[in-house]
Amino acid sequence: MFLDAFDPELFRTTSETVTAKLEKHLADQSIRGLELVAPATLARAARALMTPERTSAPEFDEERLAAIIDLYIRTGIQVHSPGYMGRQFSGVVPLAGVIDFVSSVVNQPSSFYEAGQLPNVAERIMADELGRLIGWKPGGFAMVTTSGGSLANLTALLAARNERYPGYWSGGAAAVDSPGRPAIAVGADVHYSVARAAGVMGIGDAQLVRLPLDAAQRIDPARVRPALDAAREQGLHVFCLVASAGTTAVGAFDPIDELADIARERDLWLHVDGAHGASLLVSDRLRHKLRGVERADSLTWDAHKMMFVPAPCTLLFYREEARSLAPFRQQASYVFDEEPDVYTALDSGGRNFECTKRPMIMTLWALWALYGPALFATKIEHLCRLTREAHRIVEDEPDFVALHHPEANILCFRHRPGGAAGLDDAALHRLQIDIRNRVKERGHFFISKVDIDHVAALRVVLMNHQITTEHIRMLLDEIRAVARDALDGAAHDGTPLTDTGPRP
Amino acid sequence: MFLDAFDPELFRTTSETVTAKLEKHLADQSIRGLELVAPATLARAARALMTPERTSAPEFDEERLAAIIDLYIRTGIQVHSPGYMGRQFSGVVPLAGVIDFVSSVVNQPSSFYEAGQLPNVAERIMADELGRLIGWKPGGFAMVTTSGGSLANLTALLAARNERYPGYWSGGAAAVDSPGRPAIAVGADVHYSVARAAGVMGIGDAQLVRLPLDAAQRIDPARVRPALDAAREQGLHVFCLVASAGTTAVGAFDPIDELADIARERDLWLHVDGAHGASLLVSDRLRHKLRGVERADSLTWDAHKMMFVPAPCTLLFYREEARSLAPFRQQASYVFDEEPDVYTALDSGGRNFECTKRPMIMTLWALWALYGPALFATKIEHLCRLTREAHRIVEDEPDFVALHHPEANILCFRHRPGGAAGLDDAALHRLQIDIRNRVKERGHFFISKVDIDHVAALRVVLMNHQITTEHIRMLLDEIRAVARDALDGAAHDGTPLTDTGPRP
Repeated sequence: MFLDAFDPELFRTTSETVTAKLEKHLADQSIRGLELVAPATLARAARALMTPERTSAPEFDEERLAAIIDLYIRTGIQVHSPGYMGRQFSGVVPLAGVIDFVSSVVNQPSSFYEAGQLPNVAERIMADELGRLIGWKPGGFAMVTTSGGSLANLTALLAARNERYPGYWSGGAAAVDSPGRPAIAVGADVHYSVARAAGVMGIGDAQLVRLPLDAAQRIDPARVRPALDAAREQGLHVFCLVASAGTTAVGAFDPIDELADIARERDLWLHVDGAHGASLLVSDRLRHKLRGVERADSLTWDAHKMMFVPAPCTLLFYREEARSLAPFRQQASYVFDEEPDVYTALDSGGRNFECTKRPMIMTLWALWALYGPALFATKIEHLCRLTREAHRIVEDEPDFVALHHPEANILCFRHRPGGAAGLDDAALHRLQIDIRNRVKERGHFFISKVDIDHVAALRVVLMNHQITTEHIRMLLDEIRAVARDALDGAAHDGTPLTDTGPRP
Repeated sequence: MFLDAFDPELFRTTSETVTAKLEKHLADQSIRGLELVAPATLARAARALMTPERTSAPEFDEERLAAIIDLYIRTGIQVHSPGYMGRQFSGVVPLAGVIDFVSSVVNQPSSFYEAGQLPNVAERIMADELGRLIGWKPGGFAMVTTSGGSLANLTALLAARNERYPGYWSGGAAAVDSPGRPAIAVGADVHYSVARAAGVMGIGDAQLVRLPLDAAQRIDPARVRPALDAAREQGLHVFCLVASAGTTAVGAFDPIDELADIARERDLWLHVDGAHGASLLVSDRLRHKLRGVERADSLTWDAHKMMFVPAPCTLLFYREEARSLAPFRQQASYVFDEEPDVYTALDSGGRNFECTKRPMIMTLWALWALYGPALFATKIEHLCRLTREAHRIVEDEPDFVALHHPEANILCFRHRPGGAAGLDDAALHRLQIDIRNRVKERGHFFISKVDIDHVAALRVVLMNHQITTEHIRMLLDEIRAVARDALDGAAHDGTPLTDTGPRP
């Protein structure tokens, strides 16, 4: 009787149910953050929706499905609401969700051409389209898709490691003949996945050389050579330099062009983590933020951030095509043909981590095919402009301090209420964390926090074009209100501002 | 004008278009394999569907979308047709595709509880449900989801490495104090991702100790201790033993219980790669294939294979909960809270590779909630029974040779036509490859190939319950026909059987 579950008609009716619920969700422009539910409470609600039947599959229960979908939508982060300002994942272009729906049903794994022909061709087309924006000519470079920026960064660093130390793959770290301990130079604000990669790869995260930042939180190019020299004196052999195009913390763009000079001079692999910011390449007005990116050896670009497609959809570029084969080596007769042909030449299984890989490119390619680059450029420019306006608003308020000039769509600031002028750094830190948690609990806005110079700051990431300056002003008022509560609470009941643990 | 693309009404109409096309696709029970198109031809067709407009986003073009969807469905692997017998990816339960559609639109990254509350709770529920089938009590073990079996295997091996060599993460391979070169013991038929992991992690793939197989292609437990002794004599320090529960090649189940004895005796981390076969745990009749799995330290389980949900949906289990924290270490104030609370306790960001992670558990949990385990058990038992019947059919034909007794739903065999009785191994190898390619080109069936004892074999993986024994007989006839063509062609025009390259 399990065949009922495979009935195409049931597929249609459930698709209609879901479409109606999602349409309503997308149309809901109320200002809302998060409805945070205690895990134990939510687990009880979820368990109540599960059939008790175990020995034979029950009939399909339409109400149960509807309740599951409602609970799923309601308890998630509300990326489509103007109250959502918190993180780098995005409300998707709805049509990208529709394309991804096709991918979920036809289930074409895209590491192998024969399994997913159009996704593989679409990858080549998007490589050409985006490679041109990087500044590369078709034919000489390579692009693979992979499941997220963390994995792309690891893959690129493996390519760098294997190229510099050819014995590493087979012999392991112990077999490597190096003038010093292999090491990777990174900006002090590099994404944690890069530091992790050093730990994963056998380099060791103690072999990360953290390059100092300038006042704008970018790697300070004047201080790179001295830092590399000091590393060498400590017995480190730096083989790779990682720049960020849009740091996670504040969205700062490291000076790629100047770092490329240093990389060439010292024979380093230059990897650019553009997970967040590479999408600015789509805009003629903003492309200059990544000046020099065409000189990078590899580039990570998350389309699921500023290209507004469902996660994951990460693109990893190599300036030289042959290097895309450097991260891995393998033999497996069940998937790899011994004699490559015109079809298997497009296989990416040898170049990416995944054996079964989602055809993630299809959402991006379909949007590009239907709307061209202008869809992305227009939205990105709008978001960056809005963030500059938000910065001006924050600057104009005496009880707020902006911590940087936003280069993209991330803005970090602190609330310094007049009555708390005397707060020391520790108290200021706790107040920001308390504000963040209280804003989250109120449920109107969702913002994040980040430590800057060891003191917490509030952080907004404007991914939603439906946010207006009016919403920004409302957020500041909300922050003022919760800060008053926090400070009053501290005064009233003696609860110290350090209380950032769970609340009833 | 980019706002048009975000119109909820457009979302509904495009969803309806796509639903109608997918319903038709699911209802099409014609016997078909692959419509293989030359990449250059397909690229031209795809480019023709792209708007030439670059400076401003054009109006939505419904016909263009319809053509894209049609091309996407038509050129993919036809996992929902009975002609599809080729690989381990699956036609999904259609409802799982519908749930995944919700995930694509609501876009809740599930590495962090606050971003995707229901997915995180659903992970805990499915951990309990499936952990019970493994033989573990709730509370003591851990499960994380991750993007594919290759990544899960790497994650588990990192945990093993970091536990055994505490200095590895920070100091790197060079800092490790080990009685020999760190090494991993694997079955000779282990999936390529495990061998890759050794290369990735700095262990080096030359430090893989390949354990000999018995006649049924399983690790031969009697020969493990001598192989480990020999490795030690060669200066290797084996810290981890990897068993396969369902090898990719033939679907063989290594004797986990006996390997667990050896692992305990020698203090090895026992990892079980059950990407394909762990799903048999859902069936009371088939669970015994994994006898001893409750003694494994870690287990990889791909729900996107035999649980029939969209890829990727991989589950990685640890027998001891604390060890799920062993693969990685990191600090990142923008995502990790300094003071964990009841919410962040559910965060998996510190335990899996991904920072942004698809809420992949939702498809599996929703099916489980609606249908219970019986849906999966019934289909899996059906497929394994069908594969045994296919084996009997092959055995009964004098011109076919089955190469093993199928333990799951994978069957490997060779065609040995009467007229080719005198084929040597090299010619037999080339004939199977030629058969595989010609079957693929005819477009009725899609099968795969694998090398067994250095000679190619034909391989069917029965993932589709709509396949009947009649389809198996039709496949054998098709194989006979293409083999005749291949052998005739060789006789007529002198083309040697070695011609397995591209054809016009």
